[in-house]
Amino acid sequence: MGRHRRMSTFRKPMAVPNLGDYSLVHVEEARRFIRDCLKRIGVPELKLRCVSEFLVAADYRGIYGSGLSQLDIYLNDLLHRRANMDAEPEIIRETVATAHVNGNDALGVIVGNFCMSLALEKAKNVGVGFVVANRSNNLGIASWYALQALDQDYAGLVMSNGAPIMVPPRSSVASIGANCLAFGVKGRNSYFMLDMVSSMKDIGSIEWALTKHEYIPHLWAADERGYSTCFPMLALRNPRLTCAGASKGYCLAAMIDLLCGVLSGANFSTQIPPWRSNVKRLCPNLGQIFIVIDPDFFLPDFMDRLDDFTECIKNSTPASLAKPIQMPGDREMRHMHLVEKLGALPYHNALLKKYNAIADLFCIKPIQMFNNDD
Amino acid sequence: MGRHRRMSTFRKPMAVPNLGDYSLVHVEEARRFIRDCLKRIGVPELKLRCVSEFLVAADYRGIYGSGLSQLDIYLNDLLHRRANMDAEPEIIRETVATAHVNGNDALGVIVGNFCMSLALEKAKNVGVGFVVANRSNNLGIASWYALQALDQDYAGLVMSNGAPIMVPPRSSVASIGANCLAFGVKGRNSYFMLDMVSSMKDIGSIEWALTKHEYIPHLWAADERGYSTCFPMLALRNPRLTCAGASKGYCLAAMIDLLCGVLSGANFSTQIPPWRSNVKRLCPNLGQIFIVIDPDFFLPDFMDRLDDFTECIKNSTPASLAKPIQMPGDREMRHMHLVEKLGALPYHNALLKKYNAIADLFCIKPIQMFNNDD
Repeated sequence: MGRHRRMSTFRKPMAVPNLGDYSLVHVEEARRFIRDCLKRIGVPELKLRCVSEFLVAADYRGIYGSGLSQLDIYLNDLLHRRANMDAEPEIIRETVATAHVNGNDALGVIVGNFCMSLALEKAKNVGVGFVVANRSNNLGIASWYALQALDQDYAGLVMSNGAPIMVPPRSSVASIGANCLAFGVKGRNSYFMLDMVSSMKDIGSIEWALTKHEYIPHLWAADERGYSTCFPMLALRNPRLTCAGASKGYCLAAMIDLLCGVLSGANFSTQIPPWRSNVKRLCPNLGQIFIVIDPDFFLPDFMDRLDDFTECIKNSTPASLAKPIQMPGDREMRHMHLVEKLGALPYHNALLKKYNAIADLFCIKPIQMFNNDD
Repeated sequence: MGRHRRMSTFRKPMAVPNLGDYSLVHVEEARRFIRDCLKRIGVPELKLRCVSEFLVAADYRGIYGSGLSQLDIYLNDLLHRRANMDAEPEIIRETVATAHVNGNDALGVIVGNFCMSLALEKAKNVGVGFVVANRSNNLGIASWYALQALDQDYAGLVMSNGAPIMVPPRSSVASIGANCLAFGVKGRNSYFMLDMVSSMKDIGSIEWALTKHEYIPHLWAADERGYSTCFPMLALRNPRLTCAGASKGYCLAAMIDLLCGVLSGANFSTQIPPWRSNVKRLCPNLGQIFIVIDPDFFLPDFMDRLDDFTECIKNSTPASLAKPIQMPGDREMRHMHLVEKLGALPYHNALLKKYNAIADLFCIKPIQMFNNDD
């Protein structure tokens, strides 16, 4: 295969900690710090655990751009009332298979968890659950919700729209979100967990590169004049991300925006406030879709068939023996094994430094490093 | 935007007829010819109209790779019993919102139409209809089915798996189909009709280039040694299509295969017989998914909101004033206007020549050219 795939795929090095730049933090300690920060600004007790588990889960899966690194954004949004810490989602209308939910501007994870349990309940009864939410916030890692379905042997499909940060073909402005999609399902010995955005790379990874003072690869994003840039700072000033697969990424993003934004009654396209908008009390009113399918309604041996499917793909001849063929979710699984081997999460020192300053400001105990002798 | 988009997007010239290579054929005449051919091999009367309308609809929308040009494949499949011309699909199991359908190896369009009306019926009652089919055949243009939902003011989402013709990242063999997805919905003054495959380009377009004796652009497909080729003949010998957006196209194709193939009980991945397999009586047993959503269950003003969405995207600043920003489906709509203006379908002479030979063989009236004085 060789030549033409190398041209179109950028190979990101696996996030293996070079302990010079990284420090180890115990999973429970990371959660403790998140809880302390949120408690300080008045987040109710019941939600502390939910948010802390959710953010650390992203880091555990190696998606550092959507984990602890986003805590300051959460704090900012809650303090400036762009998300309502006391709100609870509510059902506007429902049938045996569908529900329309008003997120009431609660945190994305609160809305997402609510909708997912609703969709699961419906799938249990009629085979499929289709839940649409408006007035929601940033979902974080979409796989978190799909995993809830997967844990109960269901298939979960989650989509969300987002701030307009992606430039459609032929356009010179970012008029659509890098809208995301996650799909998860498990077999007896295999699992499939796709979590993708419709841009070439998610914006969290660019912010994460900025935190780590690293360059980003060519073609991920353009600067304000429309030229591809390798500087995360320029890419984030007025984000203009490149669509994945040119017009295909754009089409997919538009479809997701139609389902999540237009159908739910949420904001869509350029109606959504700009990325990291600092306007007080301006809730983004994002829309999301949660679909759960019960495979038992279709086949009794779905899990065995999924194992066969995984084998069909993985056991085909690889281009290089040193690089085995991967399924969506394998990369995250490898990172989870790494964390388990290390006994702790490897966080970049630049990130820990940022949160030490926040700990000082909030007068809470800073993040404690993990000591293997503990 | 400029530079970095030009690198990743290949600009296909619009299929405007250069009347030197093209001849005009009246829509009704194209249908008549298809009906005559199918009748000759014994296809029942009721199905003749269905298949002829379906194939001509693809040409009308400008998707020539899935229209009349596929008739010889249909004839071949029916003659060699890879599709059963007398079969009717049947429901295996259903709930108020879902159905599992056995296609009984009927033609793809017969299975697709059956499943779509089932999904529409369910969506009318509970807001969503989710139908999964196995033992089906090639669906043809997936937008045909989504349009059935769109015509009744519903949203339609259709997916299908297919023969393994796409090479996953890190693999050296084609182990997954260039699985397709179509999503359609309409507003008061706008419509959205996405019809995409997960490879950079669909295989029909490569076959169509072969028919027209044209080269294909670099990167669409690889030859048997794995190098990108511009010769359709080499690309079709043992198809190895490039994934759209590298790993994203692969992930999407795998998700579609899981839903369509694994969940339905159909073949999947390398279980599906090779592209254009000539083995007699070997039915491909493809799987498909049909989802219909009734927007009225969620919002009363969905159509107005869709118009607003279209405006948000289309009215943003274009990179060049000469090239307006497009929505999925605009290209097909332009071709439909062209056909209406011409009063007939512009078919390539190479295609007409091929079917003249078939007309001779079957002793039926060849395709008559359209005369403006008629």
